[in-house]
Amino acid sequence: MSSYKIQKEFSICCSHRLNNDELSDVENQKLFGKCNNLPNHGHNYKIVLTLQSNELDTKTGMIMNFGDVKKVFEKQIHEIYDHKFLNECEGFINKITTAETMCEVFYYKLKKKLPKLYSVKIYETDTASAEFIEE
Amino acid sequence: MSSYKIQKEFSICCSHRLNNDELSDVENQKLFGKCNNLPNHGHNYKIVLTLQSNELDTKTGMIMNFGDVKKVFEKQIHEIYDHKFLNECEGFINKITTAETMCEVFYYKLKKKLPKLYSVKIYETDTASAEFIEE
Amino acid sequence: MSSYKIQKEFSICCSHRLNNDELSDVENQKLFGKCNNLPNHGHNYKIVLTLQSNELDTKTGMIMNFGDVKKVFEKQIHEIYDHKFLNECEGFINKITTAETMCEVFYYKLKKKLPKLYSVKIYETDTASAEFIEE
Amino acid sequence: MSSYKIQKEFSICCSHRLNNDELSDVENQKLFGKCNNLPNHGHNYKIVLTLQSNELDTKTGMIMNFGDVKKVFEKQIHEIYDHKFLNECEGFINKITTAETMCEVFYYKLKKKLPKLYSVKIYETDTASAEFIEE
Amino acid sequence: MSSYKIQKEFSICCSHRLNNDELSDVENQKLFGKCNNLPNHGHNYKIVLTLQSNELDTKTGMIMNFGDVKKVFEKQIHEIYDHKFLNECEGFINKITTAETMCEVFYYKLKKKLPKLYSVKIYETDTASAEFIEE
Amino acid sequence: MSSYKIQKEFSICCSHRLNNDELSDVENQKLFGKCNNLPNHGHNYKIVLTLQSNELDTKTGMIMNFGDVKKVFEKQIHEIYDHKFLNECEGFINKITTAETMCEVFYYKLKKKLPKLYSVKIYETDTASAEFIEE
Repeated sequence: MSSYKIQKEFSICCSHRLNNDELSDVENQKLFGKCNNLPNHGHNYKIVLTLQSNELDTKTGMIMNFGDVKKVFEKQIHEIYDHKFLNECEGFINKITTAETMCEVFYYKLKKKLPKLYSVKIYETDTASAEFIEE
Repeated sequence: MSSYKIQKEFSICCSHRLNNDELSDVENQKLFGKCNNLPNHGHNYKIVLTLQSNELDTKTGMIMNFGDVKKVFEKQIHEIYDHKFLNECEGFINKITTAETMCEVFYYKLKKKLPKLYSVKIYETDTASAEFIEE
Repeated sequence: MSSYKIQKEFSICCSHRLNNDELSDVENQKLFGKCNNLPNHGHNYKIVLTLQSNELDTKTGMIMNFGDVKKVFEKQIHEIYDHKFLNECEGFINKITTAETMCEVFYYKLKKKLPKLYSVKIYETDTASAEFIEE
Repeated sequence: MSSYKIQKEFSICCSHRLNNDELSDVENQKLFGKCNNLPNHGHNYKIVLTLQSNELDTKTGMIMNFGDVKKVFEKQIHEIYDHKFLNECEGFINKITTAETMCEVFYYKLKKKLPKLYSVKIYETDTASAEFIEE
Repeated sequence: MSSYKIQKEFSICCSHRLNNDELSDVENQKLFGKCNNLPNHGHNYKIVLTLQSNELDTKTGMIMNFGDVKKVFEKQIHEIYDHKFLNECEGFINKITTAETMCEVFYYKLKKKLPKLYSVKIYETDTASAEFIEE
Repeated sequence: MSSYKIQKEFSICCSHRLNNDELSDVENQKLFGKCNNLPNHGHNYKIVLTLQSNELDTKTGMIMNFGDVKKVFEKQIHEIYDHKFLNECEGFINKITTAETMCEVFYYKLKKKLPKLYSVKIYETDTASAEFIEE
């Protein structure tokens, strides 16, 4: 069986702080270390969206136009989360803003507009990333 | 079950233009936007070949020598497509030169010489890529 | 003596062909090799603008806002050259579209809107670049 | 005249907010746009230190050992600024946390321990950087 | 079915030489070319560990803390192989130090401490990599 | 005054060991740490050549063709140093194979064939580099 995938990379600049509200300050400091520092710190997050399909649109020879993927990302993610403090943003109330959780929150938000979405991968730094995949 | 993969990255510099010959100029402009501009535009395409195997060659401890993969790529792809206008090249007549289609055309051309080839991934820009995978 | 510099990187995707109209086809092919192929080939050009100043704007603590540099680049360069065939574009008539010449053409065009512009550097590929500097 | 330079790259993850305390909220929003958002946002800052010398240490054949540069950076910068909110950190009180100002603050702090320091360059994002140079 | 993955990238600088002790010098030179040169050559190996899980730790919202992955890597791999001649190191006696074999050796060594380890990928150069995956 | 520069990047894979033959083993170990380990370790060295000129060749619109720079590099550097143990190679006898010294040795070797050569910069790792410049 053969399949096609496309990937498009974006970035957002946010601050965040790792903290589990159900735990004590001491436990949080122990679990999350410097990622628990007050008030917060920040990252340039790189976000890679992967779309998957078993066939191409015969009119365009594409899964989906990169420009159209970009329009969805900008409206659903960039406008809402870029240059913000993630912990106070839509979708993260009562959640811990780990890269894993960000992938999952963004996946379900984008999936409604991108039915061929296969996974969301987020680089918190150049050497550390997480991915949420639905197969 | 365990498996091995190797990847080798190459690049070619080509011009191309997205156009579906069966559609009107207006429809093409609407579908493909600036990628439909006359006469064409161009990219440095990065091409990543992935080979897969469930065991290694016992003599070499390899799936295949990176140097041998390179020789196949240079003869089958680089000599034919590098510094050319893709729309007029072998394999793309009556096709639309999207990254998705390029992956598929190159995959079947390379597969004859690289039986362990698993996928062809092409970066059209640093942030936009397509992949054709046969599993 | 101390000074400040800022750099902002952009990209455009163009086709081009190296050809000196005053030379014969044979001479052009010898001088430029595959870069002289007909009709043309293409690149993702990375363009790095450097602005220099001996002092910062006291109101902003900046040489110039990155967002404002971007607005100038988009109007002066991106709108005119992106997804085009450079040889037919404004500024390149009767010129050879080498990376060196592109740097110079873009420098003088941008300098009118960016008085603190110090240099324009263009990567034709990941490993080959040119720069025009006015000191 | 010939000279030697060495460069060593580091990174820190911080939150910050651009705001000039002497201006009104409206003026700040106009000057700094989304970089003025409350409470703040963040970046993975890449920091490149350049040391310069006209001769090498005859014992080591080096300007300075990369490992020793790293020790100074970790003590003077990483321990103090990484995973913090820059606006509240040492050296930035009553200053605007632009990349240009960060370069200058870090330069004078490091210069005391790195007498051959030539410049500090900071990438706020992959495509936007500032540098402070003392010649 | 959905799943989560995290990746963390490391690097080690080693020398190595490709040689199959059961073959003649002529055969080794033919099989491995310049990688068989005496005494050896070297690389900056980039190593990407991937961990996989179908659920997140409810306390942390993570598969595993990046800092904890780093501690395991440093003790199991960095301390033993960095700045060494691989052919003489633990795990490679009577083996050929190809990237494929390095992935497998490191995988089984790390798996004991990282039960959620999914694969080990090693870049021998920027354009050539191998991966060992257990599914 | 205005000037032009071009840069072309190459890579070689070598092993090396930092050791000053005039010092004791204990002193060498103290000075160079793990870079003094026996027998050696290795790197993928990235090498960036910069050529400078105040005018362009009127026939080509270039300082020098990137392809011609490559030919010189391959003959003068790649053929002699790639996949070798640097300490035993031409130019490094009785020298310490630091990145600084490599830049100087390669600069004078290349300068004979590249009269417009301005500097040689060598990345020992992605984050550590040296440069030799003649102004």
